[in-house]
Amino acid sequence: MKSKGELTREKILEVARELFNSKGFNATTIRDLVAATGMQKGSLYFHFEGKDAIAREVLSEATAEFMDFLSKSLSGENPGECIDNFFRCALKKHLGTGFVGGCIFGNTALEMSDSDPEFAGAIDKVFDEWISRVAVAVSNAQNNGQIRADIGSKALAQYIVATIEGGIMMSRLKKSERPMKECLETLRITLGLRNEIQNNQQ
Amino acid sequence: MKSKGELTREKILEVARELFNSKGFNATTIRDLVAATGMQKGSLYFHFEGKDAIAREVLSEATAEFMDFLSKSLSGENPGECIDNFFRCALKKHLGTGFVGGCIFGNTALEMSDSDPEFAGAIDKVFDEWISRVAVAVSNAQNNGQIRADIGSKALAQYIVATIEGGIMMSRLKKSERPMKECLETLRITLGLRNEIQNNQQ
Repeated sequence: MKSKGELTREKILEVARELFNSKGFNATTIRDLVAATGMQKGSLYFHFEGKDAIAREVLSEATAEFMDFLSKSLSGENPGECIDNFFRCALKKHLGTGFVGGCIFGNTALEMSDSDPEFAGAIDKVFDEWISRVAVAVSNAQNNGQIRADIGSKALAQYIVATIEGGIMMSRLKKSERPMKECLETLRITLGLRNEIQNNQQ
Repeated sequence: MKSKGELTREKILEVARELFNSKGFNATTIRDLVAATGMQKGSLYFHFEGKDAIAREVLSEATAEFMDFLSKSLSGENPGECIDNFFRCALKKHLGTGFVGGCIFGNTALEMSDSDPEFAGAIDKVFDEWISRVAVAVSNAQNNGQIRADIGSKALAQYIVATIEGGIMMSRLKKSERPMKECLETLRITLGLRNEIQNNQQ
């Protein structure tokens, strides 16, 4: 069972994550956190040194969750199916929130990349890891004839991640799944993605 | 010659745009604007009703500039060249800032799409217009055999804009042209973009 202190800490992180996503990190004040948690300022400072420490922890938790999401969604009977499944899970994930909040890494990237090199570095690592994991699946799919092989797997993985981030951006603006869904569909076609293995190309 | 009032107004807008891009709109306060412009608060309020009015004007100016950029960069001897030229100009534009600031529409999209429907609507219109103009060039290029014709021009245009926004995001994180440049290169290949007209397909 979790201690009262652990529960308090979790609540602070949960509320902070919502505020960072809806208002942005820079605009969220300790006063906002006090109001939204209903806690005393002293209690916040007992658990965290300040807003930066809370933000680091929020980012660290979100990173762990996202890596778990990647492991679960980049899965299937073969590499092509892994990528197709990842596309479907990514769309479902954002559909589930009604395109509110978006991608915490994309949001923080645009907010912090000029103002906070430490944060930018941490987010850059998340993107690098995301791209690397997708690149492994792309490379395997290329070996199976399930994705076009005339472009390097790393370049294709980076392009997949970029297109997804852009698709989320436009779906958030319209509060509609259409842009993200259509971007994923266009990705499938332009990648030449096939769920079945082309044995002749192995 | 511009009046003193016009110059003051321009200075406020210029400083506000920099602050909105570096800190975000929500985190920028009237106090920040006073400090950065070196003006009196009263002078700011003489020219604008408040932060929202300043933001609307910044967005409106940025939109006009961007439409002008689109007209100039989406140009060339034929539709395929127009698109290729647009890619080169977009990269050059962000290279020129060292990937600081990024795309004001992308930044504001991620910051405001959940919190301010009026702003989100204005930004959504910019994206729609951007996509429409690219779609015209894509459609013409498809008719000339300069872009693959198995995907609709509107879907391809949306995917181009999404990939560019994602590429800018990753280049800003790394402060390197590499991600955006590679995304544009992958776009060229996956679109089947050719600068020369394929007469046999006309």
